[in-house]
Amino acid sequence: MSRESIKVFAPASVSNVGPGFDILGFALFEPGDEIILRKSLYGKLEISSITGDSGKLPYDIEKNTASVAIKSLLNKHEISQGISIEVNKKMGLGSGLGSSAASAVGAVFAANELLELNLSVEELLPHALAGEFVASKAIHADNVAPSLYGGFVLIRGYDPIDIIKIKSPKNLYCTVIFPDIEIKTSEARSILPTEVSLKKVISQTGNVAALIYGLATTDYSLIARSLNDVIIEPVRAKLITGYYEIKKAAMEAGAIGCNISGSGPSMFAFSNSEEVANKIATETKNVVKNLGLGSAAYISKVNEVGPRILD
Amino acid sequence: MSRESIKVFAPASVSNVGPGFDILGFALFEPGDEIILRKSLYGKLEISSITGDSGKLPYDIEKNTASVAIKSLLNKHEISQGISIEVNKKMGLGSGLGSSAASAVGAVFAANELLELNLSVEELLPHALAGEFVASKAIHADNVAPSLYGGFVLIRGYDPIDIIKIKSPKNLYCTVIFPDIEIKTSEARSILPTEVSLKKVISQTGNVAALIYGLATTDYSLIARSLNDVIIEPVRAKLITGYYEIKKAAMEAGAIGCNISGSGPSMFAFSNSEEVANKIATETKNVVKNLGLGSAAYISKVNEVGPRILD
Repeated sequence: MSRESIKVFAPASVSNVGPGFDILGFALFEPGDEIILRKSLYGKLEISSITGDSGKLPYDIEKNTASVAIKSLLNKHEISQGISIEVNKKMGLGSGLGSSAASAVGAVFAANELLELNLSVEELLPHALAGEFVASKAIHADNVAPSLYGGFVLIRGYDPIDIIKIKSPKNLYCTVIFPDIEIKTSEARSILPTEVSLKKVISQTGNVAALIYGLATTDYSLIARSLNDVIIEPVRAKLITGYYEIKKAAMEAGAIGCNISGSGPSMFAFSNSEEVANKIATETKNVVKNLGLGSAAYISKVNEVGPRILD
Repeated sequence: MSRESIKVFAPASVSNVGPGFDILGFALFEPGDEIILRKSLYGKLEISSITGDSGKLPYDIEKNTASVAIKSLLNKHEISQGISIEVNKKMGLGSGLGSSAASAVGAVFAANELLELNLSVEELLPHALAGEFVASKAIHADNVAPSLYGGFVLIRGYDPIDIIKIKSPKNLYCTVIFPDIEIKTSEARSILPTEVSLKKVISQTGNVAALIYGLATTDYSLIARSLNDVIIEPVRAKLITGYYEIKKAAMEAGAIGCNISGSGPSMFAFSNSEEVANKIATETKNVVKNLGLGSAAYISKVNEVGPRILD
C-alpha cells in the first residue's frame, strides 16, 4: 500500500573542514530538520507550515529551499502529484551547519520515498542543489552532498560534479559549538581573498592531502597536524566573537583540532572519545557564556547514513 | 668486519605530481645515481671522481651536492673520518627527475652504512636536504624525501618538516619520457604565478585530496580524474616543446594521467599494466622524435625501497 504522507529527518553538516574550503564536508547525527510531505488533491505544490524558523523562511514555493528542490524533481520526472510540505526547522538558520541544505535534502529524500521513485542519491543530488541554490545563491555542494549521501564527503570538482565518500575513523567525535551570533553569509563571502599567494597554496594543498590520508588511515595525529587552514580561517575568525579563545578552550579540553563550520558562527572540534567530546562542549560553552553570549552545543559522530524516515 | 668502501644506488624521483606542487613525489627504480665512498687517511673529505655529468658538476666540496650532504652529516655527529667520494651520474642533469637529490641521498645513505652510524631516514633527511640546497638554492623535499624514504611521499609542511609515506597501488606503472631539451630551473621558477585565484585554489585542493584518496584506495578512475593541475602545468608546459602533443600520445596509448615531472622537461604518465607503460614509452618517444628531438624513456613501478647497497 502506498503512503499518503511521510516524515523524514535530514542531518546538519559541517562544511569547509579545515583546509578543505568548498570541497570537504561531513554529516552530523544532530541537529537536523524534519520534513513532512503529504499527498494533496489537484497538482498543487504548497508549503502548509514552517516551524522553528522565527518566521524568517518564505512560504513562496519559488523561494523556499524545500519546495524549489521538490519542484525541480517533479519537473524533471514530469510528475503532477500535488504535495503539501511541512518544514520543521530543528536547527538555527545561519548557523554554519547547512540549514538550507538539510531542508533541501530532506525534501527530495522524502519525495523520492513518498512517490516511490527509487532514485539514487546521485539522481537526487541536482534537485537538492537547486533548492540550496535559492538560499545561498551559489552552487556549492559541501553541505548538500554530506547531508544527502551521509558520511565524510569530498567534492573533487563541479564540472561535472564529482563526489567521493571518504572513509573516516569509526571513533571520530565531533563537538559543534554554535554561539549566538549572527553572521551574514554575504559578509562571510565578501571578506574572502580573491587571490592567494602560491606559498599559501602549497601549505593548503599539503594540509588537505594529509587530512584526507589521516582520515582514510585513522591517523589521529596526522588529522591533528593537518586540520590547519591558512587561507580562510584567518579572515573569517574575525567575524566570530572570541574565536581564538573558544578554539584554545577546545584544544585544552583535548580536541584533535578545531575550526570554523561552514561560514560560521558554529565551530567544530574533533576528538576520539565521547568523554573528551563532552568536555569540549562544556568548556567551549563556558567561554562563550563568559563573553556574554548564549550557545548551543551538539556532540555527534560522523553520520554515515544521511537522511532517514521517521514516520 | 667494518667496510673500507661502499657502493650504493639512489633513485631518481618524480616530484610536483599533478596537483601536488612542492608536496608530492615518488621514487623510481630507474634511473638513479651510483655513489661510491672510500675511507681515506687523514680527516679529509674529497671528491675523487665524477662521471656521467659531461663535466658540469663541481669538485669543490662546498659546492657539490654529495659532499655538502656528507659534510653536514659528519659535522653534526662530530666525525673526522676522511672520505673520498666517487659520483657516477646515471641520469641527465636538469632532467626534472631529482638528479641532485639522488646524489645527496646516495651520499648520506652510503656514509651512514660505511661509518655504521645506524641513523634513521629521519635523521639522514636534513643532511640530504643540505646537499640538495646547494644545487637548487631552495629547501624543497619533494625529490629528496621520496628518494631517501622510497615510495610515494607527501610533504605536509616544512615548519617543522612533516613527511608522510602514502600507500600507492601495487600495479601503478610510471613511464617517464625525458625529451632532450634544456630547461633552466631558474626560468621554470621565475614563470610561476605568485598569486592564484581562490577559484583555482578550490580546484587544486579538490584534486589533490582526491588524488591522495585514489592512491590510498587503488581507485584508478579517481586517480585519472584528479591528476589535474590548474596552477603550474599551464605555465610550465610552455617550456616543453610539444608538451600537449606528447601528453595526448600518452593518453591515447592508455595512460591514466600524464603531467610534468619536477620542473621538466621530463614528463610522467601513469598506467596500470606493463604493456600500456611500454606502449606509452614507444608512442611518446615517437612524438618527440617527430619534433626533431632525442629522448630517453624509463618504465618503473613506484620504488618502495629507496636507496640500496650495490657493493
